[in-house]
Amino acid sequence: MNSNIEKAVRASFAKQTFLKTIGAELIGVSAGEVEIELPFRSDLCQQHGFLHAGVVTSIVDTACGYAALSMMPEGSEVLSVEFKINLLSPAVGEKFLARGKVVKAGKTLTFVNGEVSAKNGGDEKLIATMSATMIARAG
Amino acid sequence: MNSNIEKAVRASFAKQTFLKTIGAELIGVSAGEVEIELPFRSDLCQQHGFLHAGVVTSIVDTACGYAALSMMPEGSEVLSVEFKINLLSPAVGEKFLARGKVVKAGKTLTFVNGEVSAKNGGDEKLIATMSATMIARAG
Amino acid sequence: MNSNIEKAVRASFAKQTFLKTIGAELIGVSAGEVEIELPFRSDLCQQHGFLHAGVVTSIVDTACGYAALSMMPEGSEVLSVEFKINLLSPAVGEKFLARGKVVKAGKTLTFVNGEVSAKNGGDEKLIATMSATMIARAG
Amino acid sequence: MNSNIEKAVRASFAKQTFLKTIGAELIGVSAGEVEIELPFRSDLCQQHGFLHAGVVTSIVDTACGYAALSMMPEGSEVLSVEFKINLLSPAVGEKFLARGKVVKAGKTLTFVNGEVSAKNGGDEKLIATMSATMIARAG
Repeated sequence: MNSNIEKAVRASFAKQTFLKTIGAELIGVSAGEVEIELPFRSDLCQQHGFLHAGVVTSIVDTACGYAALSMMPEGSEVLSVEFKINLLSPAVGEKFLARGKVVKAGKTLTFVNGEVSAKNGGDEKLIATMSATMIARAG
Repeated sequence: MNSNIEKAVRASFAKQTFLKTIGAELIGVSAGEVEIELPFRSDLCQQHGFLHAGVVTSIVDTACGYAALSMMPEGSEVLSVEFKINLLSPAVGEKFLARGKVVKAGKTLTFVNGEVSAKNGGDEKLIATMSATMIARAG
Repeated sequence: MNSNIEKAVRASFAKQTFLKTIGAELIGVSAGEVEIELPFRSDLCQQHGFLHAGVVTSIVDTACGYAALSMMPEGSEVLSVEFKINLLSPAVGEKFLARGKVVKAGKTLTFVNGEVSAKNGGDEKLIATMSATMIARAG
Repeated sequence: MNSNIEKAVRASFAKQTFLKTIGAELIGVSAGEVEIELPFRSDLCQQHGFLHAGVVTSIVDTACGYAALSMMPEGSEVLSVEFKINLLSPAVGEKFLARGKVVKAGKTLTFVNGEVSAKNGGDEKLIATMSATMIARAG
């Protein structure tokens, strides 16, 4: 992958104050695929003490967006057009790993699939899947 | 509406630590309809300084969930099965208002539509729509 | 509404051989809103004798697409980018009415909400809701 | 896989009059995965002569539904709760292959991912992806 694109993804990620607020980390960037990790925190929960669906969604939407950006021309910016998430199981774990993977990159629109796994010790369990549409904007 | 149900919604909302973290407030609960407000904060943004799509999603998913809960038998709990969000416009505003409205309440599944508006002075602009499926669980 | 646009919608509808195969009729075209009707037929059913979800989807996707086209510049063509449908109740009825209504018309993308009702005698019951994204292409 | 379940899938498929109307064939049934094929026909098209999105949706929704049914207890019936489809490319081809694959099978709800490919000579091109929720009903 073009190293300028990786730099662009990392620079854009660093500007997202909300990702800092929730403690999300960008752990993998390759062409068409991005991984984000988030450690569990008790101030990010819903009413049963599980990670809030909004936090789960935030990290996988971000992974999908940057997966799309990694395939766009240099200097592009990416915006989420829409996404759908299926919440398979309660978000219980020590860490959460979100992966976005491009299904089809187009000039205007890019389709991306996402997944979130919960990690507990050595265990990894799929807890959510996403289907997203991203749009490229000139930077 | 049954006032016990309103109490149940308010009690459940208060237990969600993530909603406190982002500053979301429950401002309206009626049968099949719930409203949540969130003031803009600079630590909840994406890379262009707009409210992060994950925050937009969090408040409208929550409004949809409690709209569903308001129609369920007393003692139920509600979980999001899935939702889709369309992001119509950048989330620019002083305050954000999320509304969830039940389309069809069933014994197991409840379908809910959601909307998010951005408020700027006297202006209110629709910025996102949600279509969600919620499931009732015995409490 | 520009009458050329209504003509364009009607001309495009007439070219869709599948809509003829299933007996769909274009019954209303206005700016940002389109209605399509389909009489029940026993060769359009699923395993319980209800109208097949694929037929329900076909008419409401089409209504959403033309609702979007009605807001686009003359000479445009419209393609579905994605849609989500919630199937609220079994599709039981003598006639089915699909309505598409534009939520936000943009230069490239247009967001549309759709609904399908089943008609039985004087009764009309909401059986499905759609949330769709459409894209304009130069004709 | 339990051969009674395969029989149940085949028997249910045979009862769907709409699938006969469009010429869909059930070509593969295994535990958690179902494949359906549809030859192109000129009476199943949209305005540009491509296979109609409603037909694409019909075959992949059906593949997803039966993939879910293949994991349910004997005697169950399956209904689509909701699905979302992303239309990646125009549906141009001699044959179309829809695959549904279970992501998570639950007691009440089953989550399924679907794909549709267009076949042209030896070529196979992914043209659509689906994310669906199915519900089990006692038969």
